[in-house]
Amino acid sequence: MAIWLDRSAEDFETRFAAFLTTKREVSEDVNAVVRDIIADVRARGDAALADYSRRFDGIDFTVLPMKVTDAEIDAAIAQVDPAVLDALHLAAERIEKHHARQLPKDDIYEDAIGVTLGSRWTAIEAVGLYVPGGTASYPSSVLMNALPARVAGVERIVMVVPAQAGQLNPTVLAAARIAGVKEIYRIGGAQAVAALAYGTETIAPVAKIVGPGNAYVAAAKRQVFGTVGIDMIAGPSEVLVIADANNDPDWIAADLLAQAEHDMGAQSILITDDAAFGKAVEQAVERQLGTLSRAETARASWLDFGAIILVPDLAAGIPLANRIAAEHLELAVDDPDTLMKDVRNAGAIFVGRHTPEVIGDYVGGSNHVLPTARSARFSSGLSVLDYVKRTSILRLGPEQLKALAPAAIALARSEGLDAHGRSVAIRLNLEG
Amino acid sequence: MAIWLDRSAEDFETRFAAFLTTKREVSEDVNAVVRDIIADVRARGDAALADYSRRFDGIDFTVLPMKVTDAEIDAAIAQVDPAVLDALHLAAERIEKHHARQLPKDDIYEDAIGVTLGSRWTAIEAVGLYVPGGTASYPSSVLMNALPARVAGVERIVMVVPAQAGQLNPTVLAAARIAGVKEIYRIGGAQAVAALAYGTETIAPVAKIVGPGNAYVAAAKRQVFGTVGIDMIAGPSEVLVIADANNDPDWIAADLLAQAEHDMGAQSILITDDAAFGKAVEQAVERQLGTLSRAETARASWLDFGAIILVPDLAAGIPLANRIAAEHLELAVDDPDTLMKDVRNAGAIFVGRHTPEVIGDYVGGSNHVLPTARSARFSSGLSVLDYVKRTSILRLGPEQLKALAPAAIALARSEGLDAHGRSVAIRLNLEG
Repeated sequence: MAIWLDRSAEDFETRFAAFLTTKREVSEDVNAVVRDIIADVRARGDAALADYSRRFDGIDFTVLPMKVTDAEIDAAIAQVDPAVLDALHLAAERIEKHHARQLPKDDIYEDAIGVTLGSRWTAIEAVGLYVPGGTASYPSSVLMNALPARVAGVERIVMVVPAQAGQLNPTVLAAARIAGVKEIYRIGGAQAVAALAYGTETIAPVAKIVGPGNAYVAAAKRQVFGTVGIDMIAGPSEVLVIADANNDPDWIAADLLAQAEHDMGAQSILITDDAAFGKAVEQAVERQLGTLSRAETARASWLDFGAIILVPDLAAGIPLANRIAAEHLELAVDDPDTLMKDVRNAGAIFVGRHTPEVIGDYVGGSNHVLPTARSARFSSGLSVLDYVKRTSILRLGPEQLKALAPAAIALARSEGLDAHGRSVAIRLNLEG
Repeated sequence: MAIWLDRSAEDFETRFAAFLTTKREVSEDVNAVVRDIIADVRARGDAALADYSRRFDGIDFTVLPMKVTDAEIDAAIAQVDPAVLDALHLAAERIEKHHARQLPKDDIYEDAIGVTLGSRWTAIEAVGLYVPGGTASYPSSVLMNALPARVAGVERIVMVVPAQAGQLNPTVLAAARIAGVKEIYRIGGAQAVAALAYGTETIAPVAKIVGPGNAYVAAAKRQVFGTVGIDMIAGPSEVLVIADANNDPDWIAADLLAQAEHDMGAQSILITDDAAFGKAVEQAVERQLGTLSRAETARASWLDFGAIILVPDLAAGIPLANRIAAEHLELAVDDPDTLMKDVRNAGAIFVGRHTPEVIGDYVGGSNHVLPTARSARFSSGLSVLDYVKRTSILRLGPEQLKALAPAAIALARSEGLDAHGRSVAIRLNLEG
C-alpha cells in the first residue's frame, strides 16, 4: 500500500527528498499538434472549429449550433435534482460573499513632497472559462472559476465546454446560469483555447483564459500565454492530513480517499505521531476502498503516491508540511492553532476535526482552485485578484519635478541613457 | 519616419488593427539549447556553472570565486560617483515607502453561521533576481526588483549577474547593497536560471525567479516555471503619449525618444488632436536624434515602430489607448483627470505635462517593471503582491458542519465522487 516514512529513521531525509520530487504526471508532448490546431483556428476561424468538433466530439454545427441557447439551459435546469440546484445556490451565495472581501481598494495619495502616486484597480474586460467534458466536468468548478470574475466586475465571461455527441452536463449548465455566465459554446480542446485567445467570426476574443483541462488544453494555454493571460496550469490534486491519535481512523481514511478518487495522479499523505493510529487509518482506507465507485482510481493513487509519515511529535510535522507545500492541509488535532501559526506553505488549511477538505470543494465559500505540485511555495489559489489588474499612477507638478530631477538625471546618465536625462532636464531648462 | 494614422480616415480600423498586432521581437527558438543547459546544471551543479561561465563569460572560478565578496562590493561602491549613490538612496527610499503600502492584510473572520474563513498572507521564502550583463545592466532595475521583495519580507534574495571577463557594473553592486541583497553570484544565462531553480552545491534553490534577460534567460524561465514561480516575460518597452497642442514639441519628442533609445524593438506612440503639433513633434524627434549617443537604436525603433495617431478630439484617443494597452501612458494635456477616468488598460499613467515617464523609471516611487506588449489588458506591474502568497483558511465546528453537510453531499453525489460525500457524512453518521 502507501509508503511509510519515519522521521526518526536514519535514511529519512534521503527518502523524503526523493518522495518530494516524485513526478505524478506523465507529461505528454502535444506541443506540435497544438501549434497546428491554433494556427488553423487563427486562419480559418469558425470553419476550423466546426471541423475539429466534428472530428473530436462528433458534433455537427449545422445541426446543433455552436452557441448554447437559453432554451437549452432552461431545459437542462429542469432536469437537475432540485436538491442539487439548492446546493448550487447555497454554494454560489457563500462563494460570492467570501470573494467580495477580496476586492482590492484603489490607493491614491499625495506624498510628503506633493507627488501624487498610487494604484488603481480595474477588472479585466473579458475572460474565457474552460470547462472539461466527460467525468471531469464539475459544476462546482464552474462556480469557483466564474464567480470571482463576476465579483471582480468582468463584463463578459465566456464558457467553452466540449460536448461529446452534443451532450452537455445539465448541472454544469445550471451552475453557469447561477454564476451569471451568459455566453457558452460547445467546443473544447486546443481549438477552444485558440478561439478564446484569437477570436473567430462567432466568438470575440477574451483577454484571459482560466480553468482546468487535459494535456492539449494545458499546452494550448501555455502557447497562447502572452497574447492573453492564463491562470495556473493545475496538476493532480493533493491533500496532507496532520492527525493525532484522537481521531476516528475512518474519518481520516475518508478524507485521504476523497483526494485519491479524483485522479490516479492525486496524492494523499498522512502525518501522525502515532504508528498504531497510522496503521488503523491504513486499514480503514483498505476497507473503505471496497465500496467506492471510483475504487480503481483511488486505489492506484493511494498505492503509487499515498504516504504515511510518522513524526516524533506533531510539531515536527510542520517543517515537513512546509516542504510538501500541499494544495490542501488538514489539521485534525486537538490544538490546531498552535500548529497553524507555523504553517507557511499551503494552498488552504482546514482547521480542526470537523473541517473535512471536501467542505472547501463545495460550500465553504473559499475557492477550491488552489496551487498544486508544491507551487504553494510561491503562488496562491484563485481569487478576485486574478480578474483585476493594477495601473500605477504618478503625477508631479513643476515643484516636484524640480525636486526629483537631479536624482533622475544622475541615474539616467549612469545608465548611459541620454534621452532619459533630456526628457527630465528639458522641462527645467537643465543640462540633461 | 514613424507612421501616421488618422482616426477619421476610412481605412483607419484596418490599419490600426494591423498596427496593434505588429510583432516587435524576433523570437529566437533557443528551447533545445536551453533544455540541455538546464539538464546539465541539474546533473553536474557547480562544475557545469564553471564550464559555462568559462565558455560564455570568459571567467575562471578557480581565480575569481563565483560568489561576489563583501570586499568587492565595498570596492565597487568606492568607485561610484557620490551623486549617483545619493540618487540611488533617494530612489530606494521612495520605492520602499510606496511599496510598503502594497502589503496585503490578512482577513480572517467568522461568518453568519459561525464558520471561520479567510486569507493569510506569507512571504515567499527565497527569491532569485536575474540581472542582465552588459549595457542592459541597470542599477535602477535592481532596486525595482529587489525592494518589493524586501518589503514583502522575503528572507533570502539571491542575485545572479553575468560578468564578462569578471567585470561587474559597480553601480549595480551598489544598488544591490542599498536594496539589501547579500548573496550575489557572477553567473548568467540559462545556467544561472537553472542554478536558482534546482540549486547546486554552492547555491541553494529559490522558490521564484524574477528579472529581465535575453532570449536564453526568458526560455529558461519558461522551462523552470512550475518548479519555481516566475515573473512576467518582459518584451520591449513602450510609451503612448496623449498630447494636446499646448505642449512644447521638444518635451514630447524627448519623451518619445527616451523610450526609443532602450531597444530597437521599443515603441513610441503619440496621439494628438492637432496635425501641426504632430508634425512639430516629428521634426523635434528628428532634430534631437542627432545628439543622442544611442541614436542608432532610437532611430531604428522610431522608424520601425513609432506612430503618430491623429484624433478628432482627445477623448477619441482613450478607446485607442485602451486597445493599445501601453506599458507607459502619458497624459500631457490641460485636463488629464477627465481623460484618465476612462483609461482602463495601461501599466502606468503619468499625469500632466510635468510627469515625464522617466521619473517613474527612477525616482517616482512606483515600480518600473510593467506589463508590455498589450498585456496591461490582463496583468499588472511588479509589486509586493508578487513576493507573497495567500493561504486560505476554513474552520468549522460540529454545528457548522451539520448546516453545510447536506449541500456538500448533494454536490459530491452529483459529481459522482463517493468518497467526497463520505468524508462529510461519516462525521455526522449520515448516509454519504
